[in-house]
Amino acid sequence: MKLLSLIILGLLIVVTQTQAKENKTMTPISKIEDRKSIAVSETEYKNYFSGGEVRLDMLYPQTDAKTHGGAYVTFEPKARTNWHAHPAGQHIIVTSGVGYFQVWGEPIQVIKTGDVIWIPIGVKHWHGASKDIAMTHLVITGADTDGKNAEWLEAVSDEQYNAK
Amino acid sequence: MKLLSLIILGLLIVVTQTQAKENKTMTPISKIEDRKSIAVSETEYKNYFSGGEVRLDMLYPQTDAKTHGGAYVTFEPKARTNWHAHPAGQHIIVTSGVGYFQVWGEPIQVIKTGDVIWIPIGVKHWHGASKDIAMTHLVITGADTDGKNAEWLEAVSDEQYNAK
Repeated sequence: MKLLSLIILGLLIVVTQTQAKENKTMTPISKIEDRKSIAVSETEYKNYFSGGEVRLDMLYPQTDAKTHGGAYVTFEPKARTNWHAHPAGQHIIVTSGVGYFQVWGEPIQVIKTGDVIWIPIGVKHWHGASKDIAMTHLVITGADTDGKNAEWLEAVSDEQYNAK
Repeated sequence: MKLLSLIILGLLIVVTQTQAKENKTMTPISKIEDRKSIAVSETEYKNYFSGGEVRLDMLYPQTDAKTHGGAYVTFEPKARTNWHAHPAGQHIIVTSGVGYFQVWGEPIQVIKTGDVIWIPIGVKHWHGASKDIAMTHLVITGADTDGKNAEWLEAVSDEQYNAK
């Protein structure tokens, strides 16, 4: 009986330790299949874009690092942001397709997969897809000390967009 | 003669204005074909990695936003970082393949394309490719007020790596 009790006790220890290991808190991983991309047209951001549908995949909030947030943004052909500026700057990393990018006072530039752009603090600009090809980019957007990351301005007119 | 002079003057104005527009300083775009990825084994970073070759595509320096830098890092199968920590945190966005990620005291987790991880300030961890599949991830690495972004520790032993 004593031997049986010891065996049962040993098994209980093994089982509980295994359970504890499985239930141990682990650093969370945000998996793509658990995230939901957002259609801009269905949100408060709809007035900041024009020309077509835009989708956001919010990768991480400003609250992690306090200094920047990250998102994938996908523009269908002709869709683009309004003119806007960032009080703490923004990096754009194009991950798919072909798009346009323009800084106020400069000509439109074509941007493609692999391109990286630094938008300095306060520079008025817009970006979006090209006329016929969708574009996805990662944006790493700085946040100022008040947590603000963008100042939205007027829409990019068809005349301005078609200048390319 | 006067008419001819006027025509020539008009043409000169058009030509010089066109030249001025073409030569106008434009916001630079870093194009993938102009960048060179770095083999870690050929750099000062070689002691911070083990298990196989690792390549860095430095997307943007800490000097842009002052608070973070960005790079793509590609690990061939079995290649991984040493154990390390980040004084201002780091975000990992897996863009290709399958890899491993482990925080000190936790089991190894598998990470795949589309996964996003926030490594908080000072957390000891490592990441790299899986045994048979290469992995690429984008790292957005915070920089502290002294510009430091990593504290490198001991290598991940084969025993630790093979625990997965």
